[in-house]
Order: sequence, then structure tokens, then C-alpha cells
Amino acid sequence: MKLVKIKRALLSVSDKSGIVELARTLRNHGCEIISTGGTRQILENVGIQTTEISTVTGNPEAFGGRMKTISFNIESALLYDRETDKAEAEKLNIEAIDLVVCNLYPFEKVLKQGADFNTLIENIDIGGPTMIRAAAKNFKWVTVMTSPKDYIELQTELENNEGAVSYEFRKKLMAKAFNHTADYDALIATNMDKQNGIDSLRLSFESGYALRYGENSHQSAAFYRERKQAHSLYDLNVLHGKPLSFNNILDINGAIEAIRDSKRVACSVVKHSNPCGFAEAEDQRKALELAWAGDPISAFGSIIAFNRPLTLDTVSFFQLDHEKRSKRKFIEVVIAPSVEKDALDYLQFHKNLRIIEFNINELEETKDYRYLNGALLAQDQDNVPFEQMLIVTERSPELSQTQGLIEFGLRAIRNIKSNSIAIVRQKNDAYQLLGMGAGQPNRLVATKLAIEKCRENLQPEFTGNPEDFDTFAKEALGETFLISDAFFPFADNVELAAAEGIRQIVQPGGSIRDKSVIKTCNNLDVAMVFTGTRHFKH
Amino acid sequence: MKLVKIKRALLSVSDKSGIVELARTLRNHGCEIISTGGTRQILENVGIQTTEISTVTGNPEAFGGRMKTISFNIESALLYDRETDKAEAEKLNIEAIDLVVCNLYPFEKVLKQGADFNTLIENIDIGGPTMIRAAAKNFKWVTVMTSPKDYIELQTELENNEGAVSYEFRKKLMAKAFNHTADYDALIATNMDKQNGIDSLRLSFESGYALRYGENSHQSAAFYRERKQAHSLYDLNVLHGKPLSFNNILDINGAIEAIRDSKRVACSVVKHSNPCGFAEAEDQRKALELAWAGDPISAFGSIIAFNRPLTLDTVSFFQLDHEKRSKRKFIEVVIAPSVEKDALDYLQFHKNLRIIEFNINELEETKDYRYLNGALLAQDQDNVPFEQMLIVTERSPELSQTQGLIEFGLRAIRNIKSNSIAIVRQKNDAYQLLGMGAGQPNRLVATKLAIEKCRENLQPEFTGNPEDFDTFAKEALGETFLISDAFFPFADNVELAAAEGIRQIVQPGGSIRDKSVIKTCNNLDVAMVFTGTRHFKH
Repeated sequence: MKLVKIKRALLSVSDKSGIVELARTLRNHGCEIISTGGTRQILENVGIQTTEISTVTGNPEAFGGRMKTISFNIESALLYDRETDKAEAEKLNIEAIDLVVCNLYPFEKVLKQGADFNTLIENIDIGGPTMIRAAAKNFKWVTVMTSPKDYIELQTELENNEGAVSYEFRKKLMAKAFNHTADYDALIATNMDKQNGIDSLRLSFESGYALRYGENSHQSAAFYRERKQAHSLYDLNVLHGKPLSFNNILDINGAIEAIRDSKRVACSVVKHSNPCGFAEAEDQRKALELAWAGDPISAFGSIIAFNRPLTLDTVSFFQLDHEKRSKRKFIEVVIAPSVEKDALDYLQFHKNLRIIEFNINELEETKDYRYLNGALLAQDQDNVPFEQMLIVTERSPELSQTQGLIEFGLRAIRNIKSNSIAIVRQKNDAYQLLGMGAGQPNRLVATKLAIEKCRENLQPEFTGNPEDFDTFAKEALGETFLISDAFFPFADNVELAAAEGIRQIVQPGGSIRDKSVIKTCNNLDVAMVFTGTRHFKH
Repeated sequence: MKLVKIKRALLSVSDKSGIVELARTLRNHGCEIISTGGTRQILENVGIQTTEISTVTGNPEAFGGRMKTISFNIESALLYDRETDKAEAEKLNIEAIDLVVCNLYPFEKVLKQGADFNTLIENIDIGGPTMIRAAAKNFKWVTVMTSPKDYIELQTELENNEGAVSYEFRKKLMAKAFNHTADYDALIATNMDKQNGIDSLRLSFESGYALRYGENSHQSAAFYRERKQAHSLYDLNVLHGKPLSFNNILDINGAIEAIRDSKRVACSVVKHSNPCGFAEAEDQRKALELAWAGDPISAFGSIIAFNRPLTLDTVSFFQLDHEKRSKRKFIEVVIAPSVEKDALDYLQFHKNLRIIEFNINELEETKDYRYLNGALLAQDQDNVPFEQMLIVTERSPELSQTQGLIEFGLRAIRNIKSNSIAIVRQKNDAYQLLGMGAGQPNRLVATKLAIEKCRENLQPEFTGNPEDFDTFAKEALGETFLISDAFFPFADNVELAAAEGIRQIVQPGGSIRDKSVIKTCNNLDVAMVFTGTRHFKH
């Protein structure tokens, strides 16, 4: 399609970065530059000749700058069709403007500075959006630039095409221009609603791409980045393996959420978005081994996340080069802030494994949104681990020794679907999720599931006679902490746990039957800590 | 704050509804009406005197209508400050315009009609948004109307204030105006991205209100309606009880999703967003009884949804008027398309019960979105129940007799968090979810949970000697269908189910070990149906 030579350009920008270089390039190609206010001053200061806008509009700048560009002349120069309207334009003395460079940041800037209502209103640009939108509409002839990021590409186009711009580039810039004005009015609209006591919300997503399918193969799906997020889950860097699936991405989010607040070396193992394995240790390999041992059956085909550069020592645990296929530990996805070269080489033994670099620490805190059939629930993320550590029983865990483990347990429970129970233990220097129960309508079932899983996981550690396993398991469970995401409505959970050897329970408290629950703890010599903080997650 | 008299108005609308009546009211108050094109014609046709816009702009209409309103005169008339700029306006011969009535629908209209690219571009309005935005910015003096829905209120204002408009109304209309232009450019931007092969997405939500808190009390939260949704989950009509909580709304969505596709009388009982009870029957009371019996412990404090007007006969099941408090069945929320008067009176015995009217049948189909840390997964809803009913075993269920029950089971499984197993049975004319296992990393655990729940639920039906219960339970389970949300990776699930008496299994199929699974079924005389359709839900 047609190249259009830039003979006359209008420059009026809020973000002045790169504008001088762009103006120089334009002048080098013999382009006339029309400009306004601050932009003009900068260009004139460096000796770039410009035309004052009022000589084009034919009108004075008026009303404290509210009227500067809007005029029959400017918008006609942008809007007329260079073929069909040619004669009419000549008759009306309209000379084409081929390029508009304009961007709209003052509203956002003063908003961030906490400006008052009048200042906000004064910073709503009327002329700018009009020029941008007029130029964009007539992109068949006109180039419109709304971001300094595109200047280099424009300069290259001008160099390559003797001062002209291609149709494809103009079309791309046109879409960007309407996105720019859409963003601008979205911000204004939301804020003006707020000024009226109205709560509205506009979310914008870009760079969408189709996934193979959604949760199931009959559901089509796509993945987007939220506009203006410096670092989002979208930035998963796939180093190796098949493209990510919808369910991979869901599980990856679960896996990185689990280790998000770990200060120590951590590893999470996720299946169906629940962490079934989770550990923190001094050593990455140890963390993986302990997390894997949390549910060594479900760990096959799981998503595993780390919060430190991934080493060969760690990943050799998967035995991907083992001669017996049955000895190799196949997983779906592995995620780490970075993957050391030899570890990456090793992991590639598994052809289909998705290997992903992603740094959770750079993730910005966002809201948590749930879209439900044309409605939206918005909430803060759950980032208060506990309010207190209140021992409510006669038996008392030594918090100075155990608070680290309890906090680890709270990090675990926060990410397991409700109703949930997590049982955690300390093993040498490491913390391990020994067993968990997730997603149960009835809390008692979650407790049962967690204890059963612990007993299963203790089996390989037991070397005595089978008839002594029960005693062994109860002793081992006596060292653990059982963490509940919400309060116990009845004492039955305590009775069940105590019968299996549990001696230390952490829960938010707050039931009308707390007294009876505490009494049961005292009768059964169980210690209980109230945190005051519930961790429902659905 | 100040009333502003409307002496001069500019009317230029795409949606012409109500415009004649509005113009008449304005004229009755002595207001001059400036108008353009089609709007002007309509007004003149009914004898309303108008001023042609070009007499105000001082410019001709030019370039095939691309230039009509944009001019120094019009935008100055909208933008100048009636106090500080008064002298300057007089000097420049600018006469104030006090009201702009303008809306922007042609782009949306032609888009829906499937217009080609050029037609879309031609239908991008430049002058309209400029006027609307200029008037909105100067709302201190100017009234701007972008929706015919607001005409009546304007007419009332004019009547009450002798042709003037209040500051509060102008401020409200200003915010609406920026929402109108934001919506307009959002639609254009998304579509122009598409024209460039770029997938972007803009979601807009309105009418937000704060909830008491989010999933937990330390998380603040709000609830929004998606803009332009005719019927959304937001439209829950609370007839009685405390305001809905964040978790109530999540669970309500789960409860109505469960019964959404039921053609017969249906009832779902939800706890932590999983349906732990679900039934379809000829009779609503029966449906409730059977759904409740699916998990009579978890049903306390649950969310219960119906798809028919709720009757007294049904709700008297809750025994809310029972003299013994322990006999009353307390639940959190009850939802039905409508609640009969006597049923409503009865339910109000329970002071805190949220009673909600909501008609699922009016719910529009939307996408399913998952917001994850600054990224978004979008997918179609899961609305394909099954692709086929393929009997893959020697034993064969009589599909002519049982397909209804299987389809009921698929409606159940579709809404239970993965990995999930549902066991369903027919009881006289009714279908019942007898037991389910939800949210398990390991499918085998889900199967165990579902069978255990069935056995629990069969207990009250058993009247024989305790030692005969096993035989009874196995016989009863032999009549059920076990439904799996995804394929069995190994035959172990079949072995476990068969050992408990299950004789009929439904699953999508598709595992590399399907053959071994089928062989195990044949060895154990179990019938298996492949549906070809997975129903993961996370």
C-alpha cells in the first residue's frame, strides 16, 4: 500500500523524551514542523525552526490555553481525504498535516501527585485527543504517534523511504492512538465517577494470544497481559518445552503463590492448583526432596516452583537420565527465577517438560479479581499471615522455638483451597508440609485427609515392625503442628487429631464454641494457638 | 452550588429517542437550539425551530461531513469560563453554549452489522467526542447529556429551576460523558487492534459497592456489575437478611451454576463453592430432601439454590419454627427465581438467612475470566456436556433407561472442583448426587471420598442388622453411576470402585492406559461409558 511523505508535522507532546531527535530527523527530510507551547520552546532552544500553531489555526490561543489547536483548519488538515477531497481542500485553503505527534499524560501525572478536583479538571486535555483521533481516523494518509517508544521506528521508516511512511506502520500507529485515547478517558471516567461517589472499574488487557484450549478441549481460550503492569504473571519465560496450557498457567500461579513469601530456599509442588508439597530448607535439593515427599504420588505430572536459581544438584533428583523409564520423575512444569546452564541441559532430557524462568520477587502486588457471570468480585490479596500468636491452652508450645514453623504452616494453608488443614513439621533445619487436606465441604474430612497423608508419608521413614508403626506415627505427629484455615466449629477435629497423636494446633479462633474446643484441648493435653487471622481461599 | 440557565443548546444525536420531547421542553423555556443533519431534520419536521450549526461555526460543512462541528467557535462556546474568560469571549464574539446533547452509537451499530474496515473507519466520530469532552470539562457551566435515559431528569430540573440545571446534576452528567467517550474509544481501540491482528480486551465494571470484607476479614472487597450486561450475577435481589458477603457471592455462583442446565425441578446445596448436594425431581420438596441428604452435615450453613418458584411446602423442610433449636436447619443463603409469599414469611423465622430472588434462565452467556497477578486467562464456559455415549465394556448399561441419570451426573461433575468424582443414582423419578469427592491432587482419593460419602448417606436407609450393611451398601452402589471429571490414568480407581459394589462408570476416556482400564472393567464385570468430554474445573 501507499507510502505517504511527511511534509508537514504537528508536534505537541506532554512526554518530551526523544522529541528533539525526532524533530531533527523530520527537518532533515525537509518537513515543516508546527508546534505548541512547551514543545515549541524546547525545539526552538536547540535551533529547530518551527511554525507557531496559531498561524495555522488562524485563531488566537484563547481562554488560558483551553483553546490552542482545535480549529477548522487543523482538524480539516488532518481529516480530509487526499484524493476525493483534494479540490475542496484547495478551495478552502487547507494544507495537509501528515504527522501528529501528541501524547496525553498530564491528567495521570497530577492524579498521582494527589491534585485537587479543580486541578484534575484543568488537566483534562480536549485539543490533544481531538488531533490524535482525527489523525488516526485518517490514517490512510496521516501518521499519528502517541508514544516516544515508536520514534525510532518512525525515524527508520523515514530514512528507508526518503521521508515517507508505510501504510502498515500508519495502521499500527492508528490502533495505538485509539488505545491511547481509550486509556486516557478510562482513567478520567473512573476518577470522575469517584468524584461523584461512584465506584467503577476499567481493566485493560493486551498482547493476547490463543492457548491450545481452555480448562478442557471444547473450551477455546486466550492469555493476556494487563496493560501497564511492569511485571505480571504474563512474563513467564518459557526456556524449553511445549507451549503452556490454560491449566499449566493456573497451576503455575498456585505454585508461585505458595513460595511467594518464603524468605528461605523454598519449593512447592502443585496439582490442580493446590500445593500438595511445600518445603523450606537451607538447601534447594533438600527443599525439593521434602516437598516431593509431601505427596510422592501426586507429584508425578505436577508443577514445581522454586524461589532460587535452579541448580543441577537439585534437578538431578528427577533422575531424568535414569536408564529405567519408571525411575524417572516426570513432571509437567518447573519454574525458577533462573536456571543454571547445566541444570537446563539436564532438564532437557525430558522433551516435553516446560522449563520456565520467572522471578516472583518482581511481581507487583495487584488486586484479586473473580469474574462471575457478568459481575466482578474484587478484593485485596491475602497478605496478613497472622494477627497474634495467642496460646489459649494449658499445654504451651515454645513459641521461641516453633514460631518459624508455624509461620511456614500459615504460608502453606493460605494457598490450599478451603476447607483446608495443613500438617507441618521441622526436620533438622528444614520445614515440610507433611500432609494436607483440601477443598472439603466438611472440615473434619480435611483433617482426616491431612492425617492419612502424613501417615502414608511417614511409612518410608519407619524401619521397625509393622505393629509398631502406629506408635511411631503418633510420636512423629506429636512433633507436628496442625494448621486450620478457619476456626473449628466443634471439638470433633481436636478429638480426631489428638487420637492420632497431634499435640499442637494452630487456628484463627473466633467460633462461638471456642471455649468447648479449648476445654477439649486441655482434656486431651493438646496445645492450641489462636492467630486471629482466617485464611479462606476458594 | 450554582444553577445555570440553559439559554443555548446544541443537539446532535445518533440515538434519536426522546429528542423531540426534550427539544420542546427546551424551547418552552426559551432556549435556542443549534442542531446538525439528521437531528435537525427531525426537529424541523415537527415544527421546532433550530439554528443550523454552520451559522455558529462560521465554517462550511466540509469533506463529506467529516468537518461539521469542530471549530474555534463551537469549542470556545463550550470551554470558556463564564466568569474569568467573560471579557475575552465577548471580544472574540463567542456566545456560550450551555447544553450539549450528543451520543455516539454508529460505530457500535455498523460493527454489529458486520461492516467492512472502511465503513468502520468512516463511522468513527471525531466531532462528537470533542464536543462531549469539551462540555464535560466545563461542567461547572455546561450540561452534557450522552444518554436518552437522562432526558426526563433534565426536563424535571428545567421545570423545577425555571430552565436552569443544578451543579450536582451537571457533575453527574460530566462523569457519564467521560464514561461514554471511554466506552466508545475502548470499542474502537479493541477493534482496531483486531484489524492489526492484535488481541486486546477491555472490561468495564460499574455500580461497585464495598462488601464488609473479602474472603477474610483483613481483605477489603467490592462487588461490581459488568457494564452493558443485560442480566448478570450482580442482579441478585436480596429479599431478606444481612447483606451478602464475598464468600456468599462466590458460593451463590457455584450453586446457580450447578442447576443452570437442569430442565427439571432442581436443587443444589453448596459449601465452599462445591456442590455437596444436588438433585432433580418431579417435586421441589423432594429435590431439596435428596440434595440435602447428599451431605446432611455440610448442608448446615450452606447455600441452597432452586430453579423454580420456592414454595412453603419446600421450605418447611428446614423446620425453622421447630420448638427445639437443634431441630431447625440453619442455612446461610437460599436462592430461587421467585419466592412465594407464604414461603417468604416462613423463611423469615430465620432472622439472618439471606433470601434471594434470581432467575438463572435470564443469565447471559459470558466468557469465563481468571485474573492472575496482572495477567488474565479467558475461556469459553464449559457448556458441552458430552460428545458421545460410547459403551467400551462387555457389560453394558441400558442407555435408553439410564442416559438421563448419566447426563445429571455430568451436570454435577462439571461444577465440582477437580480432581472430582460424583456418584449419582435414580430414586423413583428423581436423580440424586449420592456422594462426591472434590479438589484432590490424587484422583484415587476423590473416588474414596465419594464412596465413603455414599456409604454414610446409605446408613439412614438401612434397617437391617449392622453386619449386613456392607452387602446392602454394595447393592445400592451397584445401581449408581460413578462419574469422573477426567480419564483414569490407571485401573486402580476401577478396582477400588468395583470392590465397593460400583458396576457402572462414566469417564471421558483418552488415557494411554485406556485399554488396561477397560480390561480391568471387563475382568470385574463393570460397565464403562466414554463421553469424550473432560470436565476439569479449578
